[in-house]
Amino acid sequence: MREVIILGVGMTKFGISKLSMKEMFAEAAMDALSESNLEAKNMEALFVGNVLGDFEEGQINIAPFLAAEIGMRVEAPATRFENACASATVAIRHAVLMVAAGIYDLVIAGGTERTAIMGTSLATKTFAMGSHSEYERFTGITFPGVFGMVAHQYAAKYGIPLDRLKQSMAATAVKNHRNGTLNPLAHFRKEITVDTVLGSAMIAHPLQLFDCCPFSDGAAAVVIADAAKYKDRVAKPVFVVGTGQCTAGPLYRQRDLTRMTAREAAIKHAYKEAGIGPADVDVCELHDCFTIAEIVASEALGFFEFGEGAAAVDRGDTSLEGRIPINPSGGLKAKGHPIGATGAAQVYEIVKQLRGECGERQVKGARVGVVDTLGGDFSTVCNLVLRR
Amino acid sequence: MREVIILGVGMTKFGISKLSMKEMFAEAAMDALSESNLEAKNMEALFVGNVLGDFEEGQINIAPFLAAEIGMRVEAPATRFENACASATVAIRHAVLMVAAGIYDLVIAGGTERTAIMGTSLATKTFAMGSHSEYERFTGITFPGVFGMVAHQYAAKYGIPLDRLKQSMAATAVKNHRNGTLNPLAHFRKEITVDTVLGSAMIAHPLQLFDCCPFSDGAAAVVIADAAKYKDRVAKPVFVVGTGQCTAGPLYRQRDLTRMTAREAAIKHAYKEAGIGPADVDVCELHDCFTIAEIVASEALGFFEFGEGAAAVDRGDTSLEGRIPINPSGGLKAKGHPIGATGAAQVYEIVKQLRGECGERQVKGARVGVVDTLGGDFSTVCNLVLRR
Repeated sequence: MREVIILGVGMTKFGISKLSMKEMFAEAAMDALSESNLEAKNMEALFVGNVLGDFEEGQINIAPFLAAEIGMRVEAPATRFENACASATVAIRHAVLMVAAGIYDLVIAGGTERTAIMGTSLATKTFAMGSHSEYERFTGITFPGVFGMVAHQYAAKYGIPLDRLKQSMAATAVKNHRNGTLNPLAHFRKEITVDTVLGSAMIAHPLQLFDCCPFSDGAAAVVIADAAKYKDRVAKPVFVVGTGQCTAGPLYRQRDLTRMTAREAAIKHAYKEAGIGPADVDVCELHDCFTIAEIVASEALGFFEFGEGAAAVDRGDTSLEGRIPINPSGGLKAKGHPIGATGAAQVYEIVKQLRGECGERQVKGARVGVVDTLGGDFSTVCNLVLRR
Repeated sequence: MREVIILGVGMTKFGISKLSMKEMFAEAAMDALSESNLEAKNMEALFVGNVLGDFEEGQINIAPFLAAEIGMRVEAPATRFENACASATVAIRHAVLMVAAGIYDLVIAGGTERTAIMGTSLATKTFAMGSHSEYERFTGITFPGVFGMVAHQYAAKYGIPLDRLKQSMAATAVKNHRNGTLNPLAHFRKEITVDTVLGSAMIAHPLQLFDCCPFSDGAAAVVIADAAKYKDRVAKPVFVVGTGQCTAGPLYRQRDLTRMTAREAAIKHAYKEAGIGPADVDVCELHDCFTIAEIVASEALGFFEFGEGAAAVDRGDTSLEGRIPINPSGGLKAKGHPIGATGAAQVYEIVKQLRGECGERQVKGARVGVVDTLGGDFSTVCNLVLRR
């Protein structure tokens, strides 16, 4: 397999957009192409994540329209990937594999989504279609409910009083909101306190409003290339050195809600391919759709022992200055969560971090970064390992 | 690149199903695995086409659930592909490319869809989301409307009186319905006459009801493998020797509705990779969503000169006993069109034809077959070339 690099990245501001999904993607893609010193007509394929374009804008079959929007050639295939919130990471992983294998030399990949236009009620209901329609949804469960159960099980399993755990969860939100203030593209750029979280509305016990990420609009794109041919084209190429995508499926295959089997299998694969372990990682963007989700993910990725993730947040280990800075972008919690674009935005942040281009939120000396994206209620996890 | 084979194929009966999308896929997948003398746990990845699962069954993120339904391992990635009606062919093409490149040795790919449950009104409206939401749909256009325009332009361009063209279009439907009577898995198994077509309701001038394929439920699956490792496992492996996937995008990039640029580019790529030309093809399953769609596709695939496709049907060139039998399965017109599964069912038919397992609808001595699937109003075409 060949070495694979990311030549350029682009991302819209996340939040509430008046631009269409196609316009947002074009903005992100043009920035990624510009950073790559290439044009859309040079791209040999387009891989895009999008989840609910039909409910958002009455649009399925979006990939060919995105290819046309940015001016790609008829000869270039354009393909949509959908694995719920992991869609863009899955699209990027397939691009990486196909460039590594020599099928393509240059692929543009990313995601676009416009969830905010749906409003909270429809967005919550349509997101819930990512859970199993026959075996789960008749119970009335939505994603906040699933992660509420994760928090309860975590507290019970590790003997942590729920009030104590809620402090750590709140500290996670405080950290990510602080990081978000340093990210000009973040949806929320406002500091909060532990009291903000604990004083907010109850959503799905014990999750309160500020334990939950927002519904956001946004797009992000990356240009993936064969390193041998293209690494001299840019000053700071970033290498993709490991990938993993694994599949738990429905919740009935998940015996312990605090230990996501898909994540443990995916990151094991990605680390092995990269020839590294968690101690080698300098910065991580992981899937903090809820505060408890960040805590369990930080354990599965190997940064902390199982049951130690909450205490690690309290110690500041995951802050910008900590031992392993997590979600310097603000994460899904503060940067926002346009589901089909989320993974591409995580890659955007890690690339910028590894290049040293993150200004006030820069993780000093970052050389190796990990991307972690969850799709559905634990059904898919996709991981990428990047290094400068 | 390595040689790639299809080890086994499976397909549900197409029509109106009481089974869920997951149950249908499992039925098709189990047959494909059984033919391959392999089990789900041997599969290294699952690639599936599905278009409107959210409107049909409130299900996005279907791939991991299908993987679980058939008993695949957590380590195996499961990914959904969506390119409108070309979704399954695109999924299969990516599986072929990744096996050819050595990324995987064994992949199960296919599609599942349950369009009939939506009813004609909702199905028509949701299918129309495959056209461009900003540039096309505000005109009120649906797919019958687009292909009605194709028929008018075809008649005008080639100086064929519309009544004459309608006879050829009707003859296409008669042929495909006749083939469908010979296919136990076809949605419609009833002979019709030219008068049936010309006496049916007007849908979008000049297309009448029997010029249009039905809304169907169904699933199909294929097991794709590295030839070197697996070709001795089955008696009749079928080789995938060429693929193509190209992208016109929205209709505004299509100057002549009778000449689909994405198809001409895709089949050129597939033939070149296979080292053959249209004269080498013995049997073809192509995208006859409407009768006129079969006529223009038969020309773009190189079987007839442009403008000669209608006359070729009249001569019987595309019948089971003709020079180039097209849609021996009954095609989308009679076999049915469960959109996300359609391409996999086309592959199923070509594999069965090349193995000589098609009974009364067998194309004698077929050695080389072509699959052709259209996604959206000309936005994507995906082609595969198979040989025994």
